[in-house]
Amino acid sequence: MSNAQAVNYCSKCGATVTRRIPADDNRPRAVCDSCGTIHYENPKLIVGCIAEWDGKILLCRRAIEPRHGLWTVPAGFMEMGETTAQGAARETMEEAGAQVENLEPYALYNIPHIGQVYLLFRAQLTDGRFAAGTESLDVALYDETQIPWSELAFATVRNALTRYFHDRKTGHFALHVGTIEPLPKPAR
Amino acid sequence: MSNAQAVNYCSKCGATVTRRIPADDNRPRAVCDSCGTIHYENPKLIVGCIAEWDGKILLCRRAIEPRHGLWTVPAGFMEMGETTAQGAARETMEEAGAQVENLEPYALYNIPHIGQVYLLFRAQLTDGRFAAGTESLDVALYDETQIPWSELAFATVRNALTRYFHDRKTGHFALHVGTIEPLPKPAR
Repeated sequence: MSNAQAVNYCSKCGATVTRRIPADDNRPRAVCDSCGTIHYENPKLIVGCIAEWDGKILLCRRAIEPRHGLWTVPAGFMEMGETTAQGAARETMEEAGAQVENLEPYALYNIPHIGQVYLLFRAQLTDGRFAAGTESLDVALYDETQIPWSELAFATVRNALTRYFHDRKTGHFALHVGTIEPLPKPAR
Repeated sequence: MSNAQAVNYCSKCGATVTRRIPADDNRPRAVCDSCGTIHYENPKLIVGCIAEWDGKILLCRRAIEPRHGLWTVPAGFMEMGETTAQGAARETMEEAGAQVENLEPYALYNIPHIGQVYLLFRAQLTDGRFAAGTESLDVALYDETQIPWSELAFATVRNALTRYFHDRKTGHFALHVGTIEPLPKPAR
């Protein structure tokens, strides 16, 4: 279930690699048999927004796998050269055609079994405009009572939205930290 | 100044790569000329602890580059299969021989020009024991008045400790978010 790609060859010199524990290290890495380059594999950050307009939340219906056809908040892999908030705003523009402002970190989810960390910001739409990007079948603003709970794409989104609506009632939005574990295998 | 390694060859099949914008993408990636694998490069998470014991803060004197000989809080690259807090605790054990508990996210620093995101937790030592690991020349507990401010290794550490001592006086530790920009080139 990892999104990591197997490293068979050195990306620097093209020689084969061997999986071994380098000197002064304590876990196996793909080490080049020729130039010695160590190919580290580290978790990736996914950044996105719980974006609000007129009390409603911006959701995207996914046009891509995984979870094609299900609803999520705009989010995606953070890119080089940007901050976490810039990445979250960029993803909101790319997937939902919406400009956001007043970004505040709201939810941090560890997903250790797939090497991902989600960082979701809460934010406001700047002008209420939105439009489906290439990765979305549809984009819509949902009132709390209209959220398609049974058609949400990810446990992170369900958890974050549940907490968001709770916190909004109290007016207190502290950072929430959670860990998503793999679903248990079905009994047979 | 990026810590990224140039991708010249496909890590999956060993063929050469070309830097181009894949279909349905908007930025150049290293794409394999043979098997088409796209080699994404994303920011890395560095996790660590501002760990306290008897009011003092645990600092490590670096035995490795960069900033050999300067002081920092225990922190390092997050590894696959762990949560951010587990990574921060692991680094504190590896670099400072100290067990920590009660980890709470405290400071998030973007360092876009080198593709890094720092996430520092505040924590307490479990039993007050510590010992220099292989990446540390020395480990010590410093009172606020004794912190070696002029010998700190990183701007993130200086910033986080300054805020930490401020917040400790008020008793209110909200998550702090900051961005570290490159130092301006010296005038000549």
